[in-house]
Amino acid sequence: MKRVGKHTVMLENRPSVSAYAAVVGKKEGEGKLGSCFDLVSEDDYFSKTTWEQAESEMLSRCFSICCKKAELLPSEPDCIIAGDLLNQCIGTTFALKDTNAPYLGIYGACSTMAEGIAIGAMLLDGGFGENVCAVTGSHFATAERQYRFPLEYGSCRTPTAQNTVTGSGAVMLSREKGCPHVTGVSIGKIADTGIKDTCNMGAAMAPAAFMTLKAHFLETGREPDYYDAIFTGDLGAVGHDILEALLEEEGLKLGTRYHDCGVMIYDGAEGKDRIFGSGCGCCASVLCGHILPEMRAGRLKRVLFAATGALMSPTSSMQKQSIPAVCHAISIENEV
Amino acid sequence: MKRVGKHTVMLENRPSVSAYAAVVGKKEGEGKLGSCFDLVSEDDYFSKTTWEQAESEMLSRCFSICCKKAELLPSEPDCIIAGDLLNQCIGTTFALKDTNAPYLGIYGACSTMAEGIAIGAMLLDGGFGENVCAVTGSHFATAERQYRFPLEYGSCRTPTAQNTVTGSGAVMLSREKGCPHVTGVSIGKIADTGIKDTCNMGAAMAPAAFMTLKAHFLETGREPDYYDAIFTGDLGAVGHDILEALLEEEGLKLGTRYHDCGVMIYDGAEGKDRIFGSGCGCCASVLCGHILPEMRAGRLKRVLFAATGALMSPTSSMQKQSIPAVCHAISIENEV
Repeated sequence: MKRVGKHTVMLENRPSVSAYAAVVGKKEGEGKLGSCFDLVSEDDYFSKTTWEQAESEMLSRCFSICCKKAELLPSEPDCIIAGDLLNQCIGTTFALKDTNAPYLGIYGACSTMAEGIAIGAMLLDGGFGENVCAVTGSHFATAERQYRFPLEYGSCRTPTAQNTVTGSGAVMLSREKGCPHVTGVSIGKIADTGIKDTCNMGAAMAPAAFMTLKAHFLETGREPDYYDAIFTGDLGAVGHDILEALLEEEGLKLGTRYHDCGVMIYDGAEGKDRIFGSGCGCCASVLCGHILPEMRAGRLKRVLFAATGALMSPTSSMQKQSIPAVCHAISIENEV
Repeated sequence: MKRVGKHTVMLENRPSVSAYAAVVGKKEGEGKLGSCFDLVSEDDYFSKTTWEQAESEMLSRCFSICCKKAELLPSEPDCIIAGDLLNQCIGTTFALKDTNAPYLGIYGACSTMAEGIAIGAMLLDGGFGENVCAVTGSHFATAERQYRFPLEYGSCRTPTAQNTVTGSGAVMLSREKGCPHVTGVSIGKIADTGIKDTCNMGAAMAPAAFMTLKAHFLETGREPDYYDAIFTGDLGAVGHDILEALLEEEGLKLGTRYHDCGVMIYDGAEGKDRIFGSGCGCCASVLCGHILPEMRAGRLKRVLFAATGALMSPTSSMQKQSIPAVCHAISIENEV
């Protein structure tokens, strides 16, 4: 790999995306993207009795489907890089504990899919092995219990609050050639602009996306129109507009090629109010259910996938701390 | 790098350990190792008003000292790889949010220091950059509140329970040559032997250490006596003996070269009862305060550093789940 700036390395061996899978919950299956996922649960319990075990089961099934598509046994990846939103990342730990494959746990909140792909692609580029699988997901019910209120309270949502996606994604990265490829990685730094409203994550995370995307364009010498499409993870409508405005001030116009997975995931699934998705599983499931299939079909050739994560906890918020955020961007391209 | 087995890669460019720092709490400063740490806090509050902020301040100071020793500004490492035990890893996030350096968050529980060094060393070996800093730590008071009971309850400890170390470590890995070097990495898989007693982490984690060490010796073709010293992270007395027995059954005798950082950290600091350390900060502070200085002084030439982590959470334990564990081993050597 070759470092082209403080945040960005370009990959010389360009690991390929050899397989991907997305498993989601009932509500996520009801939108326009619904038919693109490998599996949609009927009841979000995934045949388990607790929400946390349901989340693990979802992740486990997603990883299994991805391995099957890659024609690998669950024990065969040289490493699984995974994490989730639950305290101590028990979603992924319990999902993957019987795989018998080397495991590296990561925590990047909703940026986890981009972080996993970044680390995995860089390891493979450096000669680490043949296959590395990046896995992540989130579950609405576990996140509500842990971050907000028990579902039984029936709390109301504020206008800027997002909905944690019940969904998961798994990406198999391989040294063997194939399309698409991971061609570059921009690792973000933590951004904290002092926002404390945990019901407005889009605003808290947009500055992190801004810093990473600005660095990516500057360091690669690319303009936004180099890419057919640019996706952020889960900024929602508020964060989407903030990011667009911040970049425009720098002369970087994203235009109609810019989409946010949090805006896309529930499109068509809403009741009377428009809702936006968040959580590790949001951009992970959109990446694996929609973006990568579009690339493989040749309808998208060059994609920038930028996932953001909010790095606070209920404890830090109760202690009146602000919300630090991070964003990692992955350049995925069809051309070799 | 060159893969020599399912778990192990040997590093060809052998990144060096260019600097290290350890900052600990009051009790950790009272043992035989007390004088080896860079900074010992007088009251474990590190001049902050909440325990969580104290933990962040400790980590921040530790990272700063490490950067200063490496003659780098906090913004200059090509990446910081860090994590801790707190929900959503807020210990490290808030400690490092103003560094202005690219950040990758990891979660490996008490194996975090080994995981950070593993990822960092492999990235540098593959050409990622010049300097990567691995940082982690833990705090007794935040861990008690989060995992067990508020300190004010004055709960009694069971005989096998360990004491979360208030301590932190930071290791600067550099492409530039110097001693010692990271020469190999064995990434563990998750081991779960069904143990559910969260007051006996040593027993829950020893099988993970066994699997990783057995794989390391098998895949490298090395015998335990290749190393001057072998350190596990925080198995305590119970786990230490289990690991020794398990490896002996495989014909691998560790002998007197085997030490556990959890046994070492409070040696000489006890009151009437012998206590053993645990937590990310346990092996991180012993590595940076004792092991690496011993290597630089030439008294240890070849070290195997194997840190274990228990991957459960209070929620998974309340749901009667077992305790999965993981262990990563790092080969650190003075010879080029």
